[in-house]
Amino acid sequence: MVLKLHGLSVSTCTARVVACLHEKSVDFELVPVDLFARENKQPEFLAKNPFGLVPVLEDDGITLFESRAITAYVAEKFKETGHDLIRRENFNEAALVKVWTEVESQQYNPAMEPIIFEFFAKPVVGIEPDQTVIDASLEKLKKVLDVYEARLSSNEFLAGDFYSLADLHHFPGTFYFMKTPWSSLVNDRPRVKAWWEEISARPASKKVAEGMNFGEV
Amino acid sequence: MVLKLHGLSVSTCTARVVACLHEKSVDFELVPVDLFARENKQPEFLAKNPFGLVPVLEDDGITLFESRAITAYVAEKFKETGHDLIRRENFNEAALVKVWTEVESQQYNPAMEPIIFEFFAKPVVGIEPDQTVIDASLEKLKKVLDVYEARLSSNEFLAGDFYSLADLHHFPGTFYFMKTPWSSLVNDRPRVKAWWEEISARPASKKVAEGMNFGEV
Repeated sequence: MVLKLHGLSVSTCTARVVACLHEKSVDFELVPVDLFARENKQPEFLAKNPFGLVPVLEDDGITLFESRAITAYVAEKFKETGHDLIRRENFNEAALVKVWTEVESQQYNPAMEPIIFEFFAKPVVGIEPDQTVIDASLEKLKKVLDVYEARLSSNEFLAGDFYSLADLHHFPGTFYFMKTPWSSLVNDRPRVKAWWEEISARPASKKVAEGMNFGEV
Repeated sequence: MVLKLHGLSVSTCTARVVACLHEKSVDFELVPVDLFARENKQPEFLAKNPFGLVPVLEDDGITLFESRAITAYVAEKFKETGHDLIRRENFNEAALVKVWTEVESQQYNPAMEPIIFEFFAKPVVGIEPDQTVIDASLEKLKKVLDVYEARLSSNEFLAGDFYSLADLHHFPGTFYFMKTPWSSLVNDRPRVKAWWEEISARPASKKVAEGMNFGEV
């Protein structure tokens, strides 16, 4: 059975999983969920994810949600194919992948997510972005990126000299962020800029990006 | 070398790791960090965690931060002792542990953390809690707990019929929450109440609770 991924290619959380599936060369079927019609709040979808959020992965008798749990599952299950995203052979490196994966989740994303939401999502439904929220988030993001700049001076990627889930999880949010007027936060930090260029040049990332045209249509 | 955990027993994130170490019967030394003296913002501490946050774990040539990355490391490294918190022997169960661990991180904690911060932390430094923030968080928390109530009707614990990291990660925040005027959110939901009683009755949880006297001294 081919994996079924319920979600939307423009959604950052869906794109996080799609990037991982491409890195692992795993075939899957993307089943679109109509968020405007609130399909994600209907019983059929809520039976898959009671929180009513995309993405959801169905694979071989198991249903999973939460993008970062799905990528961990995919990276472990398809260990024989594609790029090793979790450093399975080295226990300490695997631990550092977990540390920097949590950094994305607890430090980076809480600063990034409100910017994407205000700048891209609100205008879609005709609401003015709240610049106060954006400014506060930009301040938080600057501090996180200062830490990244230092970290990336001694390591090519966040967890070490290897591309891992920790980097991959940053792709979707940063991809949209680079289309905002504040992309200089990345471009003015040489190590962060080089890291971002490296991440976004990966074939898997380019493939995901094709579907990420939020706010352009 | 005995593990060194830099942190504070009253801190929810430190307590999360301490609970895990107790569950795994691992000896460790708790090295106090003086947050009031901003010891966590000094170069020596920042070299361990550039974000200047507790806890930090030092073990055998590796330094780790982010509580949920540390618990995953401890649960995997000390697989021979104590309670199996990650269901290592069953791939699908292990995946569900990851899903519900992410639920704590992305759904539960973002609702819970502001309540704890407003109610316990602000008064310590002489600032009035912001009831608007508390009320908005309580509304979010109710929705999460409704999902838990349903989930816990078919499973004894969040990831399945077994106590795992997914449950453990909830302990510190919920422990403080039960001392607030809003504990009925848990007590009015029979399955959530029974789950909480089960979690808090564990010897490891009781041991951690001894150090969690925030706001009482």
